[in-house]
Amino acid sequence: MALKTRGDYLKSLQAMRPNIYKFGELIKDVTTHPATRRTVESHARAFDAAFDSELSEIYTAKSPFIDGPIHRFNSMMMNMDEIIYNSKFKRMMYRLTGSCTGGLCVGWNAQNVLWNITNDMDKEFGTDYQARLKKWIIGAQQNGLVVAGALTDAKGDRSLRASQQPDPDTNVRIKEIRDDGIIIRGAKVMICGTAASNEIFLLPGNAYREEEKEFALACVVPKDIEGLTIVETRHPSDGREIREEGFDIIETGITQAYLIFDDVFVPKDRVFMAGEFKYSGKVIEYFTANYRACIGACVSGQGDVMIGAAALIARANGLSSRTFMDKIVQMAINNETTYGMGIGAMALGKPGSAGSWVSDSLIAHTNKVHVATLPYETKRLCQDVGGGIVETGCFPSYIDFTHPTIGPMVRKYVKAGKDVSAETRARAARLVEWLTVGAGIPGCMHGGGSPDGAKLVVRAYTPVEKFVDYARNLAGIKEAVPDPKK
Amino acid sequence: MALKTRGDYLKSLQAMRPNIYKFGELIKDVTTHPATRRTVESHARAFDAAFDSELSEIYTAKSPFIDGPIHRFNSMMMNMDEIIYNSKFKRMMYRLTGSCTGGLCVGWNAQNVLWNITNDMDKEFGTDYQARLKKWIIGAQQNGLVVAGALTDAKGDRSLRASQQPDPDTNVRIKEIRDDGIIIRGAKVMICGTAASNEIFLLPGNAYREEEKEFALACVVPKDIEGLTIVETRHPSDGREIREEGFDIIETGITQAYLIFDDVFVPKDRVFMAGEFKYSGKVIEYFTANYRACIGACVSGQGDVMIGAAALIARANGLSSRTFMDKIVQMAINNETTYGMGIGAMALGKPGSAGSWVSDSLIAHTNKVHVATLPYETKRLCQDVGGGIVETGCFPSYIDFTHPTIGPMVRKYVKAGKDVSAETRARAARLVEWLTVGAGIPGCMHGGGSPDGAKLVVRAYTPVEKFVDYARNLAGIKEAVPDPKK
Amino acid sequence: MALKTRGDYLKSLQAMRPNIYKFGELIKDVTTHPATRRTVESHARAFDAAFDSELSEIYTAKSPFIDGPIHRFNSMMMNMDEIIYNSKFKRMMYRLTGSCTGGLCVGWNAQNVLWNITNDMDKEFGTDYQARLKKWIIGAQQNGLVVAGALTDAKGDRSLRASQQPDPDTNVRIKEIRDDGIIIRGAKVMICGTAASNEIFLLPGNAYREEEKEFALACVVPKDIEGLTIVETRHPSDGREIREEGFDIIETGITQAYLIFDDVFVPKDRVFMAGEFKYSGKVIEYFTANYRACIGACVSGQGDVMIGAAALIARANGLSSRTFMDKIVQMAINNETTYGMGIGAMALGKPGSAGSWVSDSLIAHTNKVHVATLPYETKRLCQDVGGGIVETGCFPSYIDFTHPTIGPMVRKYVKAGKDVSAETRARAARLVEWLTVGAGIPGCMHGGGSPDGAKLVVRAYTPVEKFVDYARNLAGIKEAVPDPKK
Amino acid sequence: MALKTRGDYLKSLQAMRPNIYKFGELIKDVTTHPATRRTVESHARAFDAAFDSELSEIYTAKSPFIDGPIHRFNSMMMNMDEIIYNSKFKRMMYRLTGSCTGGLCVGWNAQNVLWNITNDMDKEFGTDYQARLKKWIIGAQQNGLVVAGALTDAKGDRSLRASQQPDPDTNVRIKEIRDDGIIIRGAKVMICGTAASNEIFLLPGNAYREEEKEFALACVVPKDIEGLTIVETRHPSDGREIREEGFDIIETGITQAYLIFDDVFVPKDRVFMAGEFKYSGKVIEYFTANYRACIGACVSGQGDVMIGAAALIARANGLSSRTFMDKIVQMAINNETTYGMGIGAMALGKPGSAGSWVSDSLIAHTNKVHVATLPYETKRLCQDVGGGIVETGCFPSYIDFTHPTIGPMVRKYVKAGKDVSAETRARAARLVEWLTVGAGIPGCMHGGGSPDGAKLVVRAYTPVEKFVDYARNLAGIKEAVPDPKK
Repeated sequence: MALKTRGDYLKSLQAMRPNIYKFGELIKDVTTHPATRRTVESHARAFDAAFDSELSEIYTAKSPFIDGPIHRFNSMMMNMDEIIYNSKFKRMMYRLTGSCTGGLCVGWNAQNVLWNITNDMDKEFGTDYQARLKKWIIGAQQNGLVVAGALTDAKGDRSLRASQQPDPDTNVRIKEIRDDGIIIRGAKVMICGTAASNEIFLLPGNAYREEEKEFALACVVPKDIEGLTIVETRHPSDGREIREEGFDIIETGITQAYLIFDDVFVPKDRVFMAGEFKYSGKVIEYFTANYRACIGACVSGQGDVMIGAAALIARANGLSSRTFMDKIVQMAINNETTYGMGIGAMALGKPGSAGSWVSDSLIAHTNKVHVATLPYETKRLCQDVGGGIVETGCFPSYIDFTHPTIGPMVRKYVKAGKDVSAETRARAARLVEWLTVGAGIPGCMHGGGSPDGAKLVVRAYTPVEKFVDYARNLAGIKEAVPDPKK
Repeated sequence: MALKTRGDYLKSLQAMRPNIYKFGELIKDVTTHPATRRTVESHARAFDAAFDSELSEIYTAKSPFIDGPIHRFNSMMMNMDEIIYNSKFKRMMYRLTGSCTGGLCVGWNAQNVLWNITNDMDKEFGTDYQARLKKWIIGAQQNGLVVAGALTDAKGDRSLRASQQPDPDTNVRIKEIRDDGIIIRGAKVMICGTAASNEIFLLPGNAYREEEKEFALACVVPKDIEGLTIVETRHPSDGREIREEGFDIIETGITQAYLIFDDVFVPKDRVFMAGEFKYSGKVIEYFTANYRACIGACVSGQGDVMIGAAALIARANGLSSRTFMDKIVQMAINNETTYGMGIGAMALGKPGSAGSWVSDSLIAHTNKVHVATLPYETKRLCQDVGGGIVETGCFPSYIDFTHPTIGPMVRKYVKAGKDVSAETRARAARLVEWLTVGAGIPGCMHGGGSPDGAKLVVRAYTPVEKFVDYARNLAGIKEAVPDPKK
Repeated sequence: MALKTRGDYLKSLQAMRPNIYKFGELIKDVTTHPATRRTVESHARAFDAAFDSELSEIYTAKSPFIDGPIHRFNSMMMNMDEIIYNSKFKRMMYRLTGSCTGGLCVGWNAQNVLWNITNDMDKEFGTDYQARLKKWIIGAQQNGLVVAGALTDAKGDRSLRASQQPDPDTNVRIKEIRDDGIIIRGAKVMICGTAASNEIFLLPGNAYREEEKEFALACVVPKDIEGLTIVETRHPSDGREIREEGFDIIETGITQAYLIFDDVFVPKDRVFMAGEFKYSGKVIEYFTANYRACIGACVSGQGDVMIGAAALIARANGLSSRTFMDKIVQMAINNETTYGMGIGAMALGKPGSAGSWVSDSLIAHTNKVHVATLPYETKRLCQDVGGGIVETGCFPSYIDFTHPTIGPMVRKYVKAGKDVSAETRARAARLVEWLTVGAGIPGCMHGGGSPDGAKLVVRAYTPVEKFVDYARNLAGIKEAVPDPKK
Repeated sequence: MALKTRGDYLKSLQAMRPNIYKFGELIKDVTTHPATRRTVESHARAFDAAFDSELSEIYTAKSPFIDGPIHRFNSMMMNMDEIIYNSKFKRMMYRLTGSCTGGLCVGWNAQNVLWNITNDMDKEFGTDYQARLKKWIIGAQQNGLVVAGALTDAKGDRSLRASQQPDPDTNVRIKEIRDDGIIIRGAKVMICGTAASNEIFLLPGNAYREEEKEFALACVVPKDIEGLTIVETRHPSDGREIREEGFDIIETGITQAYLIFDDVFVPKDRVFMAGEFKYSGKVIEYFTANYRACIGACVSGQGDVMIGAAALIARANGLSSRTFMDKIVQMAINNETTYGMGIGAMALGKPGSAGSWVSDSLIAHTNKVHVATLPYETKRLCQDVGGGIVETGCFPSYIDFTHPTIGPMVRKYVKAGKDVSAETRARAARLVEWLTVGAGIPGCMHGGGSPDGAKLVVRAYTPVEKFVDYARNLAGIKEAVPDPKK
């Protein structure tokens, strides 16, 4: 099977039923509409990279199921080396696009996580989920599908469980189980990369109990399936993406969306969990372990671009980037921390029951806490190096920069470093703006779960009583020292 | 003289010659044009507050020159209590507007700083600068003028001094001295609050040497003076301000601008320094000492709003804000740190030669380092509390929220906390977005000078050799321990 | 009244009944015993300073009660300037001694706090506490008394209140009220500077309720009062103080002690609260507000010495201290932060009911959080600059350094910077060791109360609901948004 | 070959020539002398652990050279799993001993690093270093040798290179090369675990140039070799180790020493580098990569004990350790960060030329920066949880605690939590003191090189120009943007 090209990919998107809205408008062609073409461009770069001799090692892989090279983002990750490529892939994607390409991330992880869990479920319940999944994976690999993934439900009142919500649709649920498939209803929200995807992989958004089994649901649907309405969310400087031209907005980008399922029928062979609530928690556990290991690579890749952008703007201002080397080193430390810890989580992981890799939860969730913190410092340092011009993008618009009468005045005063044009300074400044307060900001703090949630996992995996025993032993304390009730 | 009302203020702006551009368009009426009306609204709230019985203590003051109450922002600050009101005023302004009102800040400080320095110059050079300044101050107080201040020059190549720049206009300079005034030329950039101001107070942007005396310049000009062209800069979500309606954009705001002086004639009685380079450094020293003491109040006032917004969104999500009390306390600690240190700088200050207060430089510049750092943490915490919906403003637009067919779906799934409407949750989320990645972001890191510049001052004021002596004494070291050359 | 000299002070200590123990030994003369002479030396330096023309402005003051100069540490602080001298005094004491001189601190604050509160009590209860206090203050001023202060009780089980403790003596209590005085019983623990003090000022350790009124107690006693046994606590490198000579131990120091009151009779005129539980909380409130404002000066003074020590050791290693300027500037930022915020708390304070100054609680407690954090970073930076030799004091002992056969080898290899002797390098390294992991460490984190306690105060003083209203107003939210119960 | 027992180990130490001094005294038997017996005890626990069924997986290994199990600390690390055991071993050692066991660490790494480098040298120079090394390794494995490692030279003036030092012995040098071996001279300083070691592995302390080739030296010597004098350095609370008994001092410990080589003859078959300066830098590079990867495990193991100690003291104070769960989670995050990043560095490593594993330098050195920072926060948090009693060990000595008359008073007031004895509270408090300001402090900041050195490596490995290109590409900048000279 040949790898898919950018052209193949764009055609596959154009062939789909329009069902995405933004600002009240139905988007006819996601590859050209200004609200979505930048994220499509970002994803398309992964197809280009598969054919780039320097990048193909990262961007292509082999399949245990079919012959010939496949796209990395459709691959099975059956050992540490294969999952480390997930990190390498993501870091490189951010370097190439400056931001998140969610359609090459969540579905990929989802298929690997379910590979183990369908195996477990089949063993316990006699189901044939893994066979269905394998069939789907083979198709995805053959067709180089871009597959967004959807975990987060609308959730409603955060103090209530799914089954207690006044509106039963608040979390996506199985409304009906038929012989040939299931009817689902509800909303998955803040779903990244949908506009650029061919399909959407749904996973349960929580660990459910028996009385909530209607929410224990995993399946994969074409993005344009009947009954699914997609509403794009806002993000910083999305107005520029839609209504502006010129260097005030970068040519790549990210989108997130609300996916509203209004009694959608999903055929049986695309369903991989339907009520087996007992395994819904395990999906979350495996998924977050891998996801939070890998996300360290995302923010480090964006941090790499910030280092480059900081150096660029320093030079454009007329100063050597060596002047700011302490800050650049601190940015690099932040980047390598989340990247390196993610790799550490993988190295301490192990294969699941069906062989696909599961990263170490404790290290992965510790990493998530850093992912929710360090990039904020990296952005601050990038703004610190760049000066006032980048902090809030504080210089006139592209329109004014190129205006017949205003333009010359603006350009005269934007010009700074002697070997650098005013336009280059402007472009570098807009890049920093885009990365730090603009459309390039990915949702790293809460994406894939909140840092508070990660801390709960750290807490759960920290064997305090064992540590108390080590301490007692060193202190020479003989009596037991139980925790008081209060 | 009676205090000016909001109506008086708006009329005064409408009466001015249009000379402000954004997106290539000349803005006819800053009070109604969408690019500028929000910052005008912000400034107007200071006029309302002067008549509010709970706020008038902060918002009005007495003048040593004229009878009756004046607006606080036109006041002389001749003792510690009076300058502390600068901090109280700013913290309250941020609480009322959510962001920066630069037209009520820089000119106010400038007149006080020059009060001392014109006195010094008059003594040394026999000039009559202070008398000119007094005359102007009286007028400003009588008319409740909103006065932006402009220090930052375009600067050009950061590795060269003003006199070395290839383009001599890179820093605003006196092109010609006439009997009746001066001709100035060049650009002041990133000037805050210009659109909402009546006048602009120019100060030298650096400490100049003799060969650079043409840049040693202080004066005040009407905003619509002949020869001055103002180009508004961009800022986050400025597109929404111009082209959108509804809750996706907040009704207050901030602007910054490029001020381009093309051979502007400034009459003599508005000129307060014209070549006295020796005092240019002192202007910077006094200005930054006060400014960096007070700016701690700005970011704390915005931080107060972030605490409120964090509590709001938590509740809108269905959770008690007590759940997040640790984070809220940390936000409060950040706020009180910059506020309290600023007050400390004032308390350790002293009156200048003509009696207006000069804050302590060491503490003020230490505070600036915190102002460039802590608000970033406060914003991060605000996003942490708020969840994914606020991190990047991740939910559908106002248009989709209110759309006839899409709207009901969106509202169904935005609804969360049981006693809180979907609209309130949306509004709270947009406020957090506006504060942390939107148009509400003030330029606190580089505004009034960079943190690296502040660190140089901390370094200069830290008596390392004296501290070496204390250490030697404690260690019982008798020999001198000089610093090696290398 | 003449100021007291070092000689007068030492004599006053020698004249007291020995009642201090360490390592099972009763200390006969605190001025010469190796366990206590260093803290006495530290306190004695305040007497020297009173006669030093450069320091006397800080070290002496005027009394509203008696003529002539008094020692600053006996002064009333009736306005902001007078309380700022508290900070200046403490910062200078740390510079002169490297550590804490508790006998010049807590009693001083105690007398000022009680000045207001005795006034309040007298008004409400018709008592004559303030007259008693005034009489005592006059005596203290006339005699230049060094007065430790004691708040912290043994406390016992932290989950129980004072009245619930299995052992009623756990908190110091009034066992009996007689016509001529009171009998007290219990222990105050971790009391700083006792060994160097003439008297001890007892304050209630908590805000007590009616059923706990026996613990609501304030009085002042001679250190050698009958029935009081003092047991010195351990601290880092106290073994060196007792058994070693030479540069391995610094010649100043600090002590803390357990004060055990075994039915001690305190005559009436030394009792300033005896059961007025309602005011016990106010004592804590006023005391901590001032104490936590001032303690920022303590840690900054020690930080100044650390800057000096860092520069010294860098030079002794052969490097310019400029090499480490970034770290030194960060140390200075930490120092000025706690100092400047403390001053800010004072500037926002106000006189109490009888005129002595009460600092602002919110800023003071915010400062305490920094005091519990920043000095740890300052120490780390000091060790970072100094290299391995200082981190754990990693070089041979003074005995080996001066040993006839081992000594030459050791000195040969300790020698580093070319103009600096091996001995100077050794002394500088030992100073850093003493400051960062040795006997110079003061108890800044928990001294005067824990950072968690300070955060509770920050929380109590942060008007979250008011901030919610500012946020609601900006977001355009009309409905009330109450906090959910859960 | 059977594993060695604790008894075998102690006997091997007792059989050596006494050549260690502390406080001017020659230590006859390191296994019983109070200055050294604690570190011997620490090392001995690794022998016990080899026979403990729960720990033997970590504590024993297989050799590629000899049959039967060997001690892990003598093992070759030829793949990622084997080097990960280095981290597991160290974390466990800290849990068992509370501190550093340097004799089980540096020599182990040294033999592995030289395994690759002797191979390289042999190839380039035709030497037989690897054969000599293999012979020695086999002996070490057969005899379960504890082998300290020595890199750090006395260094002298830090502004001069080794060959420029006024005293040529400042760095250990080859004084003479003979047919049968070499004569070495100079001092290695701050060498950890020497007292508990059988042998010492010397590596070059720097990357040397041709004119410095006499310093390019690697060899291994018996600790008691003729001409070697060892002087123990001081460390916090070492006085207690020597002169005290009871719970004021913990029963394990760490030592560091000055090793003074006075014309020591090292026979040929123990010499693995003698002048091949070109490879001295590579030794440093490989050594630090592994060392700084693994050291993350050391500080995490000590952090585990601090978590246990914090929980213990909270309970002893009468409070549930759950009260402090946020702090405990933060401590755990710090621990897992340095542990996980170290593992990440290993996972990104690769085998060297002769197959022994070389960790990734960039991640390893990033980890070192955290190792120099995070443990300071962990200690602070431990003190924060523990309260005033632990901050400086602020309660009476063991002697007073057990004194016939003073003791009952002390114990009465040390008693706190209801189910916990006063003695347990005292022991827990002393453990925290020992860990945070006492003899348990390892030299993690500068041990194995300073954080500033690590940052230089991060800088060297950060491809700034490549990142500039990514940024240029995203910003659409066509022109080259070279770094200005200045």
